[in-house]
Amino acid sequence: MSAASAGVAPRLRLGMVGGGRGSFIGATHRLAARYDDRYELVAAALSSDPALAAATAAELHLDPARSYADYKAMAWAEAARPDGVEVVAIALPNHLHHPAGKAFLEAGVDVICDKPLATSLAEATDLAATAERCGRFLGVTYNYSGYPMARQARALIENGVLGQVRQIQVEFVLGWLSTPIEGQGGHKQAEWRTDPKRSGPSFIIADVGTHCLHLAEFVTGCRLARLAADVATVVPGRALEDDAQILLRFDNGARGMMWVSGVAAGETAGLRNRVYGEKGHVAWNQSRPDDLTLALPDGVRMLTRGGAGLAPAAKRATHMVAGLPEGFFDAFAVLYRDFAEIIAARRRGGVADPLTRLAPTAASGVRGCAFVEAALASRQAGGGWVDMPALG
Amino acid sequence: MSAASAGVAPRLRLGMVGGGRGSFIGATHRLAARYDDRYELVAAALSSDPALAAATAAELHLDPARSYADYKAMAWAEAARPDGVEVVAIALPNHLHHPAGKAFLEAGVDVICDKPLATSLAEATDLAATAERCGRFLGVTYNYSGYPMARQARALIENGVLGQVRQIQVEFVLGWLSTPIEGQGGHKQAEWRTDPKRSGPSFIIADVGTHCLHLAEFVTGCRLARLAADVATVVPGRALEDDAQILLRFDNGARGMMWVSGVAAGETAGLRNRVYGEKGHVAWNQSRPDDLTLALPDGVRMLTRGGAGLAPAAKRATHMVAGLPEGFFDAFAVLYRDFAEIIAARRRGGVADPLTRLAPTAASGVRGCAFVEAALASRQAGGGWVDMPALG
Amino acid sequence: MSAASAGVAPRLRLGMVGGGRGSFIGATHRLAARYDDRYELVAAALSSDPALAAATAAELHLDPARSYADYKAMAWAEAARPDGVEVVAIALPNHLHHPAGKAFLEAGVDVICDKPLATSLAEATDLAATAERCGRFLGVTYNYSGYPMARQARALIENGVLGQVRQIQVEFVLGWLSTPIEGQGGHKQAEWRTDPKRSGPSFIIADVGTHCLHLAEFVTGCRLARLAADVATVVPGRALEDDAQILLRFDNGARGMMWVSGVAAGETAGLRNRVYGEKGHVAWNQSRPDDLTLALPDGVRMLTRGGAGLAPAAKRATHMVAGLPEGFFDAFAVLYRDFAEIIAARRRGGVADPLTRLAPTAASGVRGCAFVEAALASRQAGGGWVDMPALG
Amino acid sequence: MSAASAGVAPRLRLGMVGGGRGSFIGATHRLAARYDDRYELVAAALSSDPALAAATAAELHLDPARSYADYKAMAWAEAARPDGVEVVAIALPNHLHHPAGKAFLEAGVDVICDKPLATSLAEATDLAATAERCGRFLGVTYNYSGYPMARQARALIENGVLGQVRQIQVEFVLGWLSTPIEGQGGHKQAEWRTDPKRSGPSFIIADVGTHCLHLAEFVTGCRLARLAADVATVVPGRALEDDAQILLRFDNGARGMMWVSGVAAGETAGLRNRVYGEKGHVAWNQSRPDDLTLALPDGVRMLTRGGAGLAPAAKRATHMVAGLPEGFFDAFAVLYRDFAEIIAARRRGGVADPLTRLAPTAASGVRGCAFVEAALASRQAGGGWVDMPALG
Repeated sequence: MSAASAGVAPRLRLGMVGGGRGSFIGATHRLAARYDDRYELVAAALSSDPALAAATAAELHLDPARSYADYKAMAWAEAARPDGVEVVAIALPNHLHHPAGKAFLEAGVDVICDKPLATSLAEATDLAATAERCGRFLGVTYNYSGYPMARQARALIENGVLGQVRQIQVEFVLGWLSTPIEGQGGHKQAEWRTDPKRSGPSFIIADVGTHCLHLAEFVTGCRLARLAADVATVVPGRALEDDAQILLRFDNGARGMMWVSGVAAGETAGLRNRVYGEKGHVAWNQSRPDDLTLALPDGVRMLTRGGAGLAPAAKRATHMVAGLPEGFFDAFAVLYRDFAEIIAARRRGGVADPLTRLAPTAASGVRGCAFVEAALASRQAGGGWVDMPALG
Repeated sequence: MSAASAGVAPRLRLGMVGGGRGSFIGATHRLAARYDDRYELVAAALSSDPALAAATAAELHLDPARSYADYKAMAWAEAARPDGVEVVAIALPNHLHHPAGKAFLEAGVDVICDKPLATSLAEATDLAATAERCGRFLGVTYNYSGYPMARQARALIENGVLGQVRQIQVEFVLGWLSTPIEGQGGHKQAEWRTDPKRSGPSFIIADVGTHCLHLAEFVTGCRLARLAADVATVVPGRALEDDAQILLRFDNGARGMMWVSGVAAGETAGLRNRVYGEKGHVAWNQSRPDDLTLALPDGVRMLTRGGAGLAPAAKRATHMVAGLPEGFFDAFAVLYRDFAEIIAARRRGGVADPLTRLAPTAASGVRGCAFVEAALASRQAGGGWVDMPALG
Repeated sequence: MSAASAGVAPRLRLGMVGGGRGSFIGATHRLAARYDDRYELVAAALSSDPALAAATAAELHLDPARSYADYKAMAWAEAARPDGVEVVAIALPNHLHHPAGKAFLEAGVDVICDKPLATSLAEATDLAATAERCGRFLGVTYNYSGYPMARQARALIENGVLGQVRQIQVEFVLGWLSTPIEGQGGHKQAEWRTDPKRSGPSFIIADVGTHCLHLAEFVTGCRLARLAADVATVVPGRALEDDAQILLRFDNGARGMMWVSGVAAGETAGLRNRVYGEKGHVAWNQSRPDDLTLALPDGVRMLTRGGAGLAPAAKRATHMVAGLPEGFFDAFAVLYRDFAEIIAARRRGGVADPLTRLAPTAASGVRGCAFVEAALASRQAGGGWVDMPALG
Repeated sequence: MSAASAGVAPRLRLGMVGGGRGSFIGATHRLAARYDDRYELVAAALSSDPALAAATAAELHLDPARSYADYKAMAWAEAARPDGVEVVAIALPNHLHHPAGKAFLEAGVDVICDKPLATSLAEATDLAATAERCGRFLGVTYNYSGYPMARQARALIENGVLGQVRQIQVEFVLGWLSTPIEGQGGHKQAEWRTDPKRSGPSFIIADVGTHCLHLAEFVTGCRLARLAADVATVVPGRALEDDAQILLRFDNGARGMMWVSGVAAGETAGLRNRVYGEKGHVAWNQSRPDDLTLALPDGVRMLTRGGAGLAPAAKRATHMVAGLPEGFFDAFAVLYRDFAEIIAARRRGGVADPLTRLAPTAASGVRGCAFVEAALASRQAGGGWVDMPALG
């Protein structure tokens, strides 16, 4: 009796573009894919440096014949194989998201792309349209929405526990670029993220502002309508902005603030999200991801992942009993599991759990790029108010 | 041997205007004055309701002859007595700060006034000028600057521990007016604070935004130069704004955000202040006032009131050993002790500790009123950027 | 119309024994007495050093004629005055609690005594009996039971919210005596507390263990029945024990642990109390005294002083609205206010609020001394189990 | 070029015993094994229920031919294959650890065994001797020692940062068995853990007390010498103890307390460890596993996983940058990676990192079982002091 005959679908055949040895985000995607054992990594174009690509492929126990020199070669070759990759993870600098993503979508491969989806709204829109046209799935790793308690917050608000949302306060602040380390050698990620050629026209808004926007919209169901952004390049000589403090107005009348920074000295990865409604608020802080504060007129509750009374969306995203902490990888893996379920259902039949709709897809990727453009437009306008671009 | 002959000055003769039974702020000022035993309450105009005034006076063990019907009568009568009040605490609704303060200053009495100093910049400026002209002291109870760890934060920044200040994030959010309780009877403080006749043209910015501005400027030494304010009246029908989210630019190039709200449902009195410099940051939260987080490149320290290595300004403001917690009253009392030392030195000779310069005076009161006007001007301009008014 | 004629009783006439300049506990008692303005300090024997006594008396604006050389002289003289002290606060080293307390009780003066009530169970029992015999009030300043959220915890348990109590975990750990500072000069309090002549046969169990026992019994209503104590003198050469780790069994079958230490290096005043029942638990930590965690099967609540749904006992003990923090002095003052109400009712008629029964009196003082003796007996028995002495 | 030819060793061939669908601990071991991609699961005896075993094997994509009916069949069959398992993970109830472990060790397979190592000291000693005799590796999953900040604490103490260790306070308290759910059906884990036939003579001391002992000894380098245990069966009718409060004395003179409970109502998995030395202390709480408080005379530092200045042992155990939280699985995986490195070095040559010596092995497993016996002996002796058994 094979696994298949028992009704168990084999693992999805996964490819990866980017993620050579030393790549932070490549290793993260691979671990997230391994986590729930729904994927098998079978092919990759790991680096434009052939030696590095080969060495990494060996470490990953890849068939050397399926370690490719570039994403185009990989897309063509894999598309031609009966056992070719079904889905590819894109772990490249921003400027390559669009061409690489497009190549795979057009080759019939589903795509899981890191954020921001692209370096411009036009590119992002084109990528989304390509997925649509090719009938392929395009997921975007806004991984913070994979935290069970972010999903719990969403469920509470969806169920009206807070009443109408009034204020949204979100921040994601890091200190690692408080000094110009990108010019000092040996800081590969700092280099490309502050290099407009690879990062696009924005550093910090694109890098973490898009996470904040998605998290805020994901949790509240509100959609950003207008903003006024005080955008700055704090470290002299840096080519891209490294700090942005933004007033937000949402379609339902809610208002809020966002702070994103790479120069918040002394911060590591301070991601905090608070949503206030008519009746109370929820507060979540990545430094303690299993907890969600829920303040209502009759008192303050500390909800815990795995605890009593959680919403199905939160339960489904949890791997471990309450009290044994989860973290970044566990949440990142939730997206990969959602993606696996969606893709497997499309490719192999079966029905994906309706809650997989929580997984971020192309539309969210497009909104992120629209947000970046709006914030940069506000910067051009001296920090004045601008509308979010109209999206299809 | 009397106390005086031992070189111990007698307590300052204190008067109070406002603060009849049921007055939150009157009771607070009295307790702060009692705390360090530097004042003796000897006269008062506690209420415009004679029965309430008399009853409160009795509870306070006041000589009935010195319980006055109104502040004017009190100012005249006390000025005529050889043992008249030396200093008066003003615990009245905002619109009376200016006339009452002026009456006492002109009667030769030093004044301790609650914030905001007045309901307009013009009034505040006049009050400051009156104090100057009459040679009297005018203190303003921005009481949060009395917390030892706020003073420690100031000392760290003054000493360059953070390097140049880059970002300032301050918020003071309350939820008590999330619903229109001011129209439901029995909420005296809610009523006057949302009533333009008594509160002036601003509710929440005047009420707690002025605290935030003072705390931010006090701790950093920066001075606010421009702002863009998203000001809202969230609860329908309310006459004054109840929420403001404000972008800040300071004279030294630092930038920041301020959120003040009376409609942050589920919050009690969330006052949080964070300052980021080139090298690190400090974070302070009123919910744990004895702690100050100091994050520097070599790690995060948790400084504690009473602990090792604190600045003289923090030591001087502490009453209790480390670990035995202090709170709101202890900090409020620090201002009263500072004021006592300043006033006693002026009236009875002696030298006040140079650190009493930390106590907020008329100039800070004027800046608060300028800030309120700037924020309201930004509201008028649709949330656009406006300059702080030029101050003398 | 005088205050009295308005039905307002004048302040209680308070005396103090001990508490000369530099005395930590003397200043604390005075501030606690001033806090709610129910006492007037009119007489004292502040120090056995006449110059120090006089200087302190002058600072306190005392009539020099009522600054006494010793407590005996004071007791006699004040008893003879028509306006003599009605109540005396005893802020002396432990060995003087009994003789001083007895002198005042026998002179017809009510007594507020610091803890431990005495240096032996026999002395403590005699003091309690003296109060009884003389018809006077004897309060003991187990001040941690004055915290509103300790009283809230008690109310929850009394109301059965946790079900039957099963486990009690209490600790009070300090690090100030981690090195032998008592032999290095200039550490007056360290000297007497580790000196058997003044402290009695126990340092840390008497000093903070008695607080822990009272808090545990106060909150739970359980009574300690047996214990096994691992008692140590960690710092070589110290005359008294400085660390004790104790297993506890209570009369209702509950079990628990207590850790008290003066050599918990790096701790300031870590007082933490947790009580577990059949259905859930409460946890309270002095470092955040306004909060009480209540964990029940349906989730965890964070109760806050001043917040919704608190018990009358907690409301009565609170001075300030929720969110504006209280601390050590506010809680200490609660006992002084309770004592004032009890004493005033006894001396001047009127009825004390029934909740004043929460204020600790002689019986609690006696239990503390019994506990010290039991713990020392267990030490003698190599850490074996011993019963609490039978108390009348 | 194959992976092997590039010098990359293939994954270790892993087997599993126990861990059928629904098994908490089986799924945990598999995820931990997958995490760092050093193992490939190739064979298993997943359940004594053939249908369940087959279904689980299919879900795991196992070759049905290597899904065995029982551990003995598996040990023999795999030993006979050239590609047989190299290491087996034992995820069975306690009473089977010894026979299953012994079968694989004698078949030449390395063993990773859950804790407690066995249900008696004799069995544990025999298992350790068997590993020794057969020249096989025997690791024990005291997984909490895999947390980077537990390893940081160990390094600090090893380096003398705290001076001589004086007090150790450790607790692991859970509330899931506060009511007798084991008798209510559907609580498989509750059933076997409270059943002496499967759990052995101890429930909570064996289940989590052994974790506490290991963590305390691992972090401090001290070895437990004596104990006095107040052991109770709180829930009536339960066959095994569900709560223990234990006084500890260590070989270096340090003293401490341990609380372990399954009936700490309202707790999820509260694991907290504090170590005090002459100069300061460290405190770690599983609810915030990335943080370690280090309190020294010059102040309190909050050390963070991934932050500046950490020890090599902590750096090596970290997978993610500071600020992006890790949790239970990440720490569990650290042990699996350590084990992989040790086993690969032994089986395939190469040198394991010296820091893999931190991974817990048979000796620690034996100490855990000795501790259980000592605690039960103390219970027999009415809570009196007993020595730890002498170990070879």
